[in-house]
Amino acid sequence: MGKNNKRGQLVVISGPSGGGKSTVITEVRNQRSGLCFSVSYTTREPRQNEENGVQYNFVSRETFLQMIEQERFVEYACYQGNYYGTSKDAVDRLLEEGKDVLLDIEVQGAAAIRKLYPEAALIFLTPPSFHELERRLRGRHSESEEVIQGRLARAREEYLQIPMYHYLVINDKVADAAGEILAIMKAQDCRVSARLDMIKEDISL
Amino acid sequence: MGKNNKRGQLVVISGPSGGGKSTVITEVRNQRSGLCFSVSYTTREPRQNEENGVQYNFVSRETFLQMIEQERFVEYACYQGNYYGTSKDAVDRLLEEGKDVLLDIEVQGAAAIRKLYPEAALIFLTPPSFHELERRLRGRHSESEEVIQGRLARAREEYLQIPMYHYLVINDKVADAAGEILAIMKAQDCRVSARLDMIKEDISL
Repeated sequence: MGKNNKRGQLVVISGPSGGGKSTVITEVRNQRSGLCFSVSYTTREPRQNEENGVQYNFVSRETFLQMIEQERFVEYACYQGNYYGTSKDAVDRLLEEGKDVLLDIEVQGAAAIRKLYPEAALIFLTPPSFHELERRLRGRHSESEEVIQGRLARAREEYLQIPMYHYLVINDKVADAAGEILAIMKAQDCRVSARLDMIKEDISL
Repeated sequence: MGKNNKRGQLVVISGPSGGGKSTVITEVRNQRSGLCFSVSYTTREPRQNEENGVQYNFVSRETFLQMIEQERFVEYACYQGNYYGTSKDAVDRLLEEGKDVLLDIEVQGAAAIRKLYPEAALIFLTPPSFHELERRLRGRHSESEEVIQGRLARAREEYLQIPMYHYLVINDKVADAAGEILAIMKAQDCRVSARLDMIKEDISL
């Protein structure tokens, strides 16, 4: 069935910081084997328990700016004074190898991906309400009031970009949200464009 | 979450006759509660075990032509000397009531649906190969060689229309094919266009 010749699928997940996105993504990765996660580059300081090369590639501002110059990012953005970027080479290599790639990026980056990879599925993941987002942000106990207010303001702006996305997943229960993302990925597998080669022998296209 | 105010989703399944389509559709209906099946009208004779109002509404050619005149079909087609049609009123009523509707119609009808209901998901369901289709058709033991050859020729024509569809599901194992169709429907539920009302209170759109 030529699974090995097939290009991987690209899935973008955006959503307000603190909405439980990483928990849902971890669940998706547990249930879909072979799903790759192109590790982003960032200039922000690692949080407690974050490891270089795992959550992010932590680089200096100088290195990051050099990579921008070398056009090595498929998208990059500045957020609260820090740069975040996705390596174009890394994404392309994984897709070419037939690997499915999940990118956890913010709205501005998603817009860039949408242009460069029109076949990508764009998913916006959000808690059931702003009230709930605020509750979850405060429950994290790792950020100042100022940062929390910044995140909420940012989330309100992001919400205005939801119509750019293909899918909206409400993260009420982690298992349900992950189940929906897995269904979206399964549906993406079934797209005619991804499967025509399966029946090529039977038709003269 | 306003599930009750929501318009239902429309799913079209086409595919060669004899490819195991009804078995897969039955499995999908068993697993997705509330899925409606707008019963088509046809002028063909009922097969053994077929019941009026269940597999089809069996009507006379005269009645069918009258319904065409009254523009009561969302699509209709003639196939091997018999008419097949889908009642527009029935489909619209179900969708308005928030019911999900699955239509089992052929290629010509699917093209009509695509124009009238751009939000519909079009799925082409096919056996893994023509060889397998032929095997399944002969296994049915209910049709003459001429009819079987006609169905195979028709299938070859239908395959050329696959690029019109959104999804291609290969019916190798019934459970897998049904699982893919259920994932497609779940993904359709998640479309931004179907869910914006869920977060309306939190954003000023």
